[in-house]
Amino acid sequence: MSEHVVITVDAVGGDLGSEPMLEGTLAALEADSELEVILCGPADVVEPFAAAHERVHAQPTTQSIGMDEHPAQAVRKKKDSSIVVGCRLVKEGKAQGFFSPGSTGACLAAATLVMGRIKGVQRPAMATILPSPVKPVVMCDVGANADCKPAYLVQFAQMATIYAEKVIGIKDPTCALLNIGEEDTKGSAFAQEAHALMRAELPNFIGNCEGRDLLDCKADVVVTDGFTGNVSLKTIEGVASVLFGCIKDIMKANPATLLGALTMKKGLSELKDSVSPDLYGGAPMLGVKGACLVGHGSSNATAVKNGILMTAKCVRLDVSGLIAQLVKKPEKPE
Amino acid sequence: MSEHVVITVDAVGGDLGSEPMLEGTLAALEADSELEVILCGPADVVEPFAAAHERVHAQPTTQSIGMDEHPAQAVRKKKDSSIVVGCRLVKEGKAQGFFSPGSTGACLAAATLVMGRIKGVQRPAMATILPSPVKPVVMCDVGANADCKPAYLVQFAQMATIYAEKVIGIKDPTCALLNIGEEDTKGSAFAQEAHALMRAELPNFIGNCEGRDLLDCKADVVVTDGFTGNVSLKTIEGVASVLFGCIKDIMKANPATLLGALTMKKGLSELKDSVSPDLYGGAPMLGVKGACLVGHGSSNATAVKNGILMTAKCVRLDVSGLIAQLVKKPEKPE
Repeated sequence: MSEHVVITVDAVGGDLGSEPMLEGTLAALEADSELEVILCGPADVVEPFAAAHERVHAQPTTQSIGMDEHPAQAVRKKKDSSIVVGCRLVKEGKAQGFFSPGSTGACLAAATLVMGRIKGVQRPAMATILPSPVKPVVMCDVGANADCKPAYLVQFAQMATIYAEKVIGIKDPTCALLNIGEEDTKGSAFAQEAHALMRAELPNFIGNCEGRDLLDCKADVVVTDGFTGNVSLKTIEGVASVLFGCIKDIMKANPATLLGALTMKKGLSELKDSVSPDLYGGAPMLGVKGACLVGHGSSNATAVKNGILMTAKCVRLDVSGLIAQLVKKPEKPE
Repeated sequence: MSEHVVITVDAVGGDLGSEPMLEGTLAALEADSELEVILCGPADVVEPFAAAHERVHAQPTTQSIGMDEHPAQAVRKKKDSSIVVGCRLVKEGKAQGFFSPGSTGACLAAATLVMGRIKGVQRPAMATILPSPVKPVVMCDVGANADCKPAYLVQFAQMATIYAEKVIGIKDPTCALLNIGEEDTKGSAFAQEAHALMRAELPNFIGNCEGRDLLDCKADVVVTDGFTGNVSLKTIEGVASVLFGCIKDIMKANPATLLGALTMKKGLSELKDSVSPDLYGGAPMLGVKGACLVGHGSSNATAVKNGILMTAKCVRLDVSGLIAQLVKKPEKPE
C-alpha cells in the first residue's frame, strides 16, 4: 500500500484555464487512493469543486502570476498567488509536494524562495525526461539556470541521477555531458571545465554526448547548462511537431493515402504519444526542500493527472531527502 | 552564361573515401559547364581521374588530416594535406573556392589561417541552412566558435544575412537571436547582451526565437554562439533520424502496413529528402577571403555535387567581397 501524500495543485496556472486542472486532479485521485489534493486558486473555482469531491480541499487565493511577469519579482509581490501559496503549504508541512502548469520561472522562483534550497545545493535545477520513442533519457538543467558555473553541472548530474534511478526506475544510470564533440577535449571553455570536473567527481560519468544523440543516448542522464538544455529540449519538441504536421498532410493528400494511413494509424499514434510531453506530465525542480513539478503551459487533463502522480511519486521516494544526503559535506573521521 | 570558376575539392576528406568525391565532382561538372575542378588528394586517386576527364586537374598531396586531430595543430603541421593545399590554391589565386567533407575544425582552421580572415571580421563563422521541410532558415554560427563574445553575433547576423539574401535567394531576410524566451529580457547574461547589441545595430533584427521555432521560424536568419548552434543543429538531425527510423518500423510492421505505406512512399520520401543535409551539400565559412564550404563527413555523391555547385555559387555572387564591404569601417566624412 502506498504512503498517504498531500499535494498542492495550482488550479489556474496553465494556458487552458482550470478545466484540465480539475479533470486531471480527479483522474489522479482515482488512480491513487492514498492521494489528497489541496487546490489553490480562485474561491469560485476551488470551493465548489472541493465540496463536491472527496480528498480535495480548497485553498482560495486572490492573485495569479502571468506567463510574462518577472518571476522573482512576481513571487515576492504576489504572496496570495496560487503558485506562492502552493509552495508555502509545502513549506508549512501541510502538503509534501506542489504541481503547477504555470510560469516555469515563477514556479522555480517560488520553490527556491518559499520552499527553500537544500543545504549544500549550489543551484536547484530542472530535470525532464526527453520525449524519446527509443528510451528514457533525463536531461538537467533544462532552463532553471541560464548562467551556470562548471561546478554546478556536477551537482546537476548527481541530482538527476537520483531522479533517474529512483523515480524513473533506471538501474545504475550513467551520465554524460552535452557537448559539441565526443572527444574529451572538445567544446567551449565552459564545457571543457565541466567535463574535467565531472570526470574527476562522478563515478557514473561516461563522457560527452552530442545533440544528435539525445533521443537515443548511450547515457541515461544528460547534463548541461540551463540555456543549452532549454534550447535543445524545445528544439526536440519543435522538430517532432513540424514532422508530425508534415506526415499528417501526407496522409491526407488523397483518398489512397487516407486509406493507406489507416493501416498505420495505431503505430503512428503510439509514436506521437511517445514523444508527447504529456506522458510524464511534469519536470521536477531538483534541489529544493519538497517536491515541485512544473507541467507545460498547455497541459491537458492527462498531463495534469500524470504530473500530479509524478509529484506524489517524488514525495514517496523522498527525492529531496536523498539529494540532501548526497550533497551533505562528509563529516571528518575521528 | 555563368562566370568561369575554379574550385579546389578535397578528394579524400570524407568518411566514405574518394568514390563519392569523384562521382560528385563529375556530376557537378556536368551540371555547370563553366566549372573547373582541382582535385586535391593522393596521386593515385587524383591523377588518373584528371587524365580521364575534362575540366579536372590533379593536385597530388601526400598528407591527410583525420577527424580526430587537433585542427589548428594539424593545419600548421601538415602543409601538404588536401585541406591545406586546397585552401592555399585559393590564397594563391589558382582557384576561387574550396570544398571539403573533411574535419570541420581543420577546414575552419585552414580557411582562417591559410586563406585569411577578411579585414574587420572579428571571427569567421559557419552558417548552414537548417534541414526544414517548411522554409529555408539560415543558422550561424553552427560550430566555428564555441566561445563567443556578444559582439561577434552582430557580425554573424550581418554575414549570414548576405548569404541568405544572395546565395539562398531570400528577399529582405530578417534575423533573430536564438534564446530561451521570446521576451527581450529573457536569457543568459550573454544572450541579453547580444540581444541589446543586435537590437541597436541591425535594422533587420526582429527579436528572439526559441528552439521550438527553428524549423518554422518567423526569421530567415537565426544567430547564436557556435556551441548552442552546433548542439541545436545536431539535435534537429538526431530527432529527424530517430523519428524516420521509427516510422520505417511502423511501415514494415505487417503486410497491411507495408501495403498502406506504398500509398505514402512518394510523400514520405520527399519529406525525408527535405530534411536531409545532402540537399545543400555544404555549410559556408563566412568571413574568410575566398569561398570555403564544408560538407558533412558522410557526404554521398549528391551531397558532394551540391556542395561543389554551392561553392561555385558563393564565388560567383562574391559573398566574400560583399562581407568585406559590409564590415569595412566607414570613412569619416570630410
